[in-house]
Amino acid sequence: MAQRYVRVKTKKGQTYYGKLQLDRSVQVLDAPPWLDGSETDLVLDVDEYQLLSPCAPSKIVAVGKNYASHAAEMDSEVPKEPLIFLKPPSSIIAHEQAIYYPKQSQRVDFEGELALVIGDRTKDCTVEEAKNKIWGYTIANDITARDLQKKDGQWTRAKGFDTFCPLGPWIVRELTSGARLETIINEEEKPKQSALLEDMVFSPAEIVAYVSQIMTLLPGDVILTGTPEGIAPMQIGDTVSVEIESIGVLTNIIEAIPD
Amino acid sequence: MAQRYVRVKTKKGQTYYGKLQLDRSVQVLDAPPWLDGSETDLVLDVDEYQLLSPCAPSKIVAVGKNYASHAAEMDSEVPKEPLIFLKPPSSIIAHEQAIYYPKQSQRVDFEGELALVIGDRTKDCTVEEAKNKIWGYTIANDITARDLQKKDGQWTRAKGFDTFCPLGPWIVRELTSGARLETIINEEEKPKQSALLEDMVFSPAEIVAYVSQIMTLLPGDVILTGTPEGIAPMQIGDTVSVEIESIGVLTNIIEAIPD
Repeated sequence: MAQRYVRVKTKKGQTYYGKLQLDRSVQVLDAPPWLDGSETDLVLDVDEYQLLSPCAPSKIVAVGKNYASHAAEMDSEVPKEPLIFLKPPSSIIAHEQAIYYPKQSQRVDFEGELALVIGDRTKDCTVEEAKNKIWGYTIANDITARDLQKKDGQWTRAKGFDTFCPLGPWIVRELTSGARLETIINEEEKPKQSALLEDMVFSPAEIVAYVSQIMTLLPGDVILTGTPEGIAPMQIGDTVSVEIESIGVLTNIIEAIPD
Repeated sequence: MAQRYVRVKTKKGQTYYGKLQLDRSVQVLDAPPWLDGSETDLVLDVDEYQLLSPCAPSKIVAVGKNYASHAAEMDSEVPKEPLIFLKPPSSIIAHEQAIYYPKQSQRVDFEGELALVIGDRTKDCTVEEAKNKIWGYTIANDITARDLQKKDGQWTRAKGFDTFCPLGPWIVRELTSGARLETIINEEEKPKQSALLEDMVFSPAEIVAYVSQIMTLLPGDVILTGTPEGIAPMQIGDTVSVEIESIGVLTNIIEAIPD
């Protein structure tokens, strides 16, 4: 099994980057692995930590309509260049944390996506150079209040609520070729979304190169690569899982906002 | 004169928050002032520091079409609710730093704006509560590649280039009533933009309350409150100054991207 890189919080509130071991203990690193973090003497047993999102990006850049099948279901064309937007870092939650259904919306959709984690400060790179700027891969769910997305025109509110960016559970360095993304609601047998990552219109390296012509990417920054067809609304109480072969499964439950 | 709060970098590369004194020395604080930073023994003379943007936000939330006069010049209506979008933190530059004219655009506009600096972690606050969440005020220039804004639909690329968010030069705690915003190109006598801040459609407190219903605001986060009428393109070599009474003047020069 490929090495899994995590970020965890201890009961005392300390935050660490680390390597997840086969027995689910975490070998703690002294810095994020993309900043050359080295192994320390500290190992956390499975009951000594909780998973956080595997990185803490200074920004989340996302790409719209990057699978032809999804552009079609939105009655839209595939863009000639990547269509980018931002989600605020405050929208990030970890694996198994609750997605809160906002009172402002009557339709909240999942969007399962491959997420790229940037390893180096990156500006104006070529597609070839971009391949080395992607330190690893994780899973994201680009939760979207579909009614507000249509109403506002700009997507910031619809995609920017707290808890609207589940990210994790961990980062791997490589994807196996032919890997598939599936989004599953309530453990139903038939996935709502099922697509090959290679069906993306713009590849991860093409996206990184494109974004780097606009803004400086920093180590730990995250890029969401778009969702395939099959988006659908979720209800309070639903469990949503996004699975990507060679990474794992990101699972979250939809809950009403606590009083 | 009201106290001016700055963030500075020394020649050794150390970054400090501080209070700007009348002789332009900086009384260094041990933390950001909105996190109760206290005065230290360190005072930096004017030749010992350079100004940075006065805060380093985890996110920049901006509001579109918040002056009726600007909505009209864009052939657009004033929205019924604030229309929000995000600029990436990587777009921030300080007073007197260069704005780089991107190769992808043929029309780059200034947009002079009042910027709010958030003092407390804020979620779901009322308009009344929001007044106490605004720690201070500074000046922003929401630089926009107008051609790309129209082309993309989403505003992220058009407003997200590196150097597209001049911010500063400093923060003040209070605005005088009846304060005016003016944007001046090349020290021309007639300002391109001239408006009263009180002509905003949604007030600073209304904007903060609205945004806080969506996303958690963190100390040091910045909210741009929209631009009045008079937007216009800039050329390489132009100097752009945004002046707000009771704050000061934010000045930057447009330059070609260095080779």
